[in-house]
Amino acid sequence: MRVRKRKGAEELIAANPQYVVENPQNWRGRWRERFGNDRPIQIEIGMGKGQFINQMAQNHPEINYIGIDMQVSVVSFALDKLLARPLDNLQLLYVDGSDLTDYFAENEVDLIYLNFSDPWPKKKHAKRRLTYKNFLAIDEQILRPAGEIHFKTDNQALFEYSLASFSQYGMTLIQVWLDLHESDYIGNVMTEYEEKFAAKGQPIYRVEAKFKVKNKN
Amino acid sequence: MRVRKRKGAEELIAANPQYVVENPQNWRGRWRERFGNDRPIQIEIGMGKGQFINQMAQNHPEINYIGIDMQVSVVSFALDKLLARPLDNLQLLYVDGSDLTDYFAENEVDLIYLNFSDPWPKKKHAKRRLTYKNFLAIDEQILRPAGEIHFKTDNQALFEYSLASFSQYGMTLIQVWLDLHESDYIGNVMTEYEEKFAAKGQPIYRVEAKFKVKNKN
Repeated sequence: MRVRKRKGAEELIAANPQYVVENPQNWRGRWRERFGNDRPIQIEIGMGKGQFINQMAQNHPEINYIGIDMQVSVVSFALDKLLARPLDNLQLLYVDGSDLTDYFAENEVDLIYLNFSDPWPKKKHAKRRLTYKNFLAIDEQILRPAGEIHFKTDNQALFEYSLASFSQYGMTLIQVWLDLHESDYIGNVMTEYEEKFAAKGQPIYRVEAKFKVKNKN
Repeated sequence: MRVRKRKGAEELIAANPQYVVENPQNWRGRWRERFGNDRPIQIEIGMGKGQFINQMAQNHPEINYIGIDMQVSVVSFALDKLLARPLDNLQLLYVDGSDLTDYFAENEVDLIYLNFSDPWPKKKHAKRRLTYKNFLAIDEQILRPAGEIHFKTDNQALFEYSLASFSQYGMTLIQVWLDLHESDYIGNVMTEYEEKFAAKGQPIYRVEAKFKVKNKN
């Protein structure tokens, strides 16, 4: 999600280190300590304005959430929501998510959400898609064994690509939805983008995929 | 595909054993001998009226095809096409395709086509879907190692189910199409059903999936 630069975003973030974590690499391997409990940790890579992660954290107090985005303005909008409705099970990271092993230790994360990730439609940019194998290798490192990725998108080409990419990486598809909003799936939390897009009546695609259980060294 | 009973279908089939194989179990393990060459063997399970398999056999003389259906009338219609345009690389089987190990030896088949298979929409009938794991186990037996299934359907629920079923069986998705007729896929041969359906403008789904290379015993 690209948004216009917001004036004062940097300052707002800097003023709220209880929510937007300073020096997150220092918490690598210690996120349960920061949350103060041993609950599962679920992260969203590319949280945009944060509606999804804020709502999930409200709905599931038994889970700890970490929302990640590299754009200062969108992180500040996600922070707005958190300031308006404080939650002790949500933290935000204003970092480039391209190498999350800087911020998470092996097996530290239970589940990864990818929502409406940039489709990078040109073939020559396929390596930038968050479902490209190099990113999956990073995800696998930080996820617990048999950890899952839950991915949704409106982009048909990205979804086609991602199903094959997950499978070819060795992941197992748990379930696939080709029209999420017309399905019997319960508990869908929409992103800002999804809400706008859904009004157009085009399908939202969703997949839950898991990594194999295997030795991680 | 369900069609009305055709008068004289049995007799037409019986009169053409050069195309509709008599006692096909006797050719188990000897199909290359029957075709008189060592070319790859590709089969279609549920060929319907045979437009797909006849056209494929015309387009690809370097491959041997076997079309299979358990309904006498549709086999007779497929035979009509073959009589109108004789082909030495196409054979038809009028048999119940539910246990193909009766008719094919291990590793004897190179590729399986499933086109617009019966969706069996009710959950309690899931075991009858041709992409259910029990059928995949049979397919794996008769296919060469890393053999492929090429599956297309207009049925969204069957496609969702099948992607997960292939993956959970341990197959790898090679490529996925969520709107085949709008894609850049070249060489699509349409079934009768597909031609009619395509006119409605709804998407045709397609996937190529392959089994793992492994010891088969």
